[in-house]
Amino acid sequence: MDFAKPLPGYLVQRYQGWKATTYAENQGWYRRLATEGQRPRAMVISCCDSRVHVTSIFGADQGEFFIHRNIANLVPPYAPDGDHHGTSATVEYAVSVLKVSHLMVLGHSQCGGVQGCIDMCKGHAPELEAKESFVGRWMDILRPKYEQVADISDEAEQASALERQSVLASLTNLMSFPFVSEAVKDGSLSLHGLWTDIGAGGLEYYDPKAGRFVEV
Amino acid sequence: MDFAKPLPGYLVQRYQGWKATTYAENQGWYRRLATEGQRPRAMVISCCDSRVHVTSIFGADQGEFFIHRNIANLVPPYAPDGDHHGTSATVEYAVSVLKVSHLMVLGHSQCGGVQGCIDMCKGHAPELEAKESFVGRWMDILRPKYEQVADISDEAEQASALERQSVLASLTNLMSFPFVSEAVKDGSLSLHGLWTDIGAGGLEYYDPKAGRFVEV
Amino acid sequence: MDFAKPLPGYLVQRYQGWKATTYAENQGWYRRLATEGQRPRAMVISCCDSRVHVTSIFGADQGEFFIHRNIANLVPPYAPDGDHHGTSATVEYAVSVLKVSHLMVLGHSQCGGVQGCIDMCKGHAPELEAKESFVGRWMDILRPKYEQVADISDEAEQASALERQSVLASLTNLMSFPFVSEAVKDGSLSLHGLWTDIGAGGLEYYDPKAGRFVEV
Amino acid sequence: MDFAKPLPGYLVQRYQGWKATTYAENQGWYRRLATEGQRPRAMVISCCDSRVHVTSIFGADQGEFFIHRNIANLVPPYAPDGDHHGTSATVEYAVSVLKVSHLMVLGHSQCGGVQGCIDMCKGHAPELEAKESFVGRWMDILRPKYEQVADISDEAEQASALERQSVLASLTNLMSFPFVSEAVKDGSLSLHGLWTDIGAGGLEYYDPKAGRFVEV
Repeated sequence: MDFAKPLPGYLVQRYQGWKATTYAENQGWYRRLATEGQRPRAMVISCCDSRVHVTSIFGADQGEFFIHRNIANLVPPYAPDGDHHGTSATVEYAVSVLKVSHLMVLGHSQCGGVQGCIDMCKGHAPELEAKESFVGRWMDILRPKYEQVADISDEAEQASALERQSVLASLTNLMSFPFVSEAVKDGSLSLHGLWTDIGAGGLEYYDPKAGRFVEV
Repeated sequence: MDFAKPLPGYLVQRYQGWKATTYAENQGWYRRLATEGQRPRAMVISCCDSRVHVTSIFGADQGEFFIHRNIANLVPPYAPDGDHHGTSATVEYAVSVLKVSHLMVLGHSQCGGVQGCIDMCKGHAPELEAKESFVGRWMDILRPKYEQVADISDEAEQASALERQSVLASLTNLMSFPFVSEAVKDGSLSLHGLWTDIGAGGLEYYDPKAGRFVEV
Repeated sequence: MDFAKPLPGYLVQRYQGWKATTYAENQGWYRRLATEGQRPRAMVISCCDSRVHVTSIFGADQGEFFIHRNIANLVPPYAPDGDHHGTSATVEYAVSVLKVSHLMVLGHSQCGGVQGCIDMCKGHAPELEAKESFVGRWMDILRPKYEQVADISDEAEQASALERQSVLASLTNLMSFPFVSEAVKDGSLSLHGLWTDIGAGGLEYYDPKAGRFVEV
Repeated sequence: MDFAKPLPGYLVQRYQGWKATTYAENQGWYRRLATEGQRPRAMVISCCDSRVHVTSIFGADQGEFFIHRNIANLVPPYAPDGDHHGTSATVEYAVSVLKVSHLMVLGHSQCGGVQGCIDMCKGHAPELEAKESFVGRWMDILRPKYEQVADISDEAEQASALERQSVLASLTNLMSFPFVSEAVKDGSLSLHGLWTDIGAGGLEYYDPKAGRFVEV
């Protein structure tokens, strides 16, 4: 473990600032959260992308949101085969143990993972086709949705459409988990599909009545 | 998709507040991030736990941190078998595509996932042993480390020790990825092990000289 | 006064959001309310409970409701003895100065104060019996009503019944205030007894013809 | 109880709107709040004034704030004499039972109760001097603070100054409760003094370093 390095100085400084302000102002709450445990109202599944901060957009405070972030905010289909399924584990913990009331899937514009999927589907990314490409194999989850956007000639528009499809694919896959569909049916859990435009600061949600994403 | 619900009103309100303040004040930067792409300096792998906000602790701004969050901040060993590996995909994207300079694994106190692992190892959690338990199968990644803390009789101390082992396990597994170990060797990437105490607001990093975690 | 702390950051952020949206959109009305004074149509007496928001349930806008909130939405009997009577002062101000047209007492399910009263009456809460227990002494107002629910064996049903009795006790006590009973008699004020079920989102009002609470 | 009236139609309509929207979108959360109990992070003591909505200013959602509202946001001194003390009961419940982390006293501009106190102190309000005046007796809590603003000749400025004194008086009185001062000393509770300008939408907090209220 001799390769591990100390925390970079710029982060030490920021941490000290946080400790002296945010922590100091809220230490009572932090202590309660530690002793009484978390009780988040919602789970959010978003992308790892550094430009997407659900905590910022929703003013998420300590203890409010159980957050899973992966490439392209994807949920794979239910597959209880005994293998490691990191995303499925987060959903199971949030719904079955924490009993969150809302589960939001948040997609976003300019998603590199979604663009990689398009490149693969167009035959432009042989390196992603390789068995060893973890990103490629992860984006296979979204691949079946490509045909729904294959006819869109404008590239930005096509990417934007597939980003929204990634949200819908995750929602559909979520419903394949028995504990999710049961909680949705009995009204204790609601699912939400969201997409944010990074540059414009826009936010859309999937409206089942309209059958498409609409501005909040 | 008729099960999808609109965004809850309390989040609509908060989003509108964010749009009118944080976004409005930084729209030039948001637009650049959208058109020029992200260029994060660091990747962080932390837990989904609602009490752990790396963006808060490190004052992370838009575009700074590529963040993956899963149960117990675990990285599985390198296994290019063609299956979906969500966590491995995030590491590949951060290191090979984004070329981040720092990769931090952030563990934390009162981790429910780590506690579940202890319960399994003690034979107290048959439900987590089931093949269908995604949480149980995910925590199998940490299981081999249990023997290192098995002798600790104080329960809180034992959990705390295994939480730190989960950070070290992830660092060790990270080095099993060829693109990670190469980047570490050529000096373009540094790895960091961190652990935060939720109630006390403390932060420790793994110090290879001391061979243990020390306060920042 | 050196113990006072600045406003926690999470509330600063939310306030800034409100200022930039709700306030900005309604500043003309806020200014008129400031210069012309309030003219609320109704007073509501509800519990302090964080799960009961009369402003949400009734879509209360700025200037509409004069709201008093205390433990278990109780009004003590008329007692002009020169002591501090906070609740009586709110009723006097609403009826004699503001001349509200409606006065609503809103009880609710899962009321901790009412449960405390039951525990006292059953001899299970010696700490609430102590002279120094403000909660205990406050719940003494409701105590005489316990005998009306003493025979109910189901605990949830009993609590629910006493919650409704707390509303009726408050209405009865309100009529002991001369300025209230006069306003009721001359038709300028109407009294309303309400009870809300937090989990089911239900709302009941006391129907004098039926002699019981009925669903709205 | 034949004087009780059904809920006015305009509120029935609004309630039905809330039930069909806000409740419907959040029923999972409402149910959890009902079955698991409340766990509010903060208590707010504000005025009953219809123009002051802490839920609006702070985007307070279901289960977040334990709210007490009385005339002029006053807390009387600690007086465990066995009488009904409604405000003291709310503080005891919030601090000792719910263990809130923050306790905010929120004053406001154009406060009718504070103006009444000034009128009394100037000898202009004999009706408030009467033993039977609940408002007058309640405002006696603030009366000792009048001398601190007696020299201010501008009436609006004087009222504004006494409104801030009412916040400070409440904070001082809060510290006279043993369970409050102990929680403040051990860091589990923080007290905050706030004042809002209704017309301008401003918010100030008491800054102990500056020794006065400053804009947020």
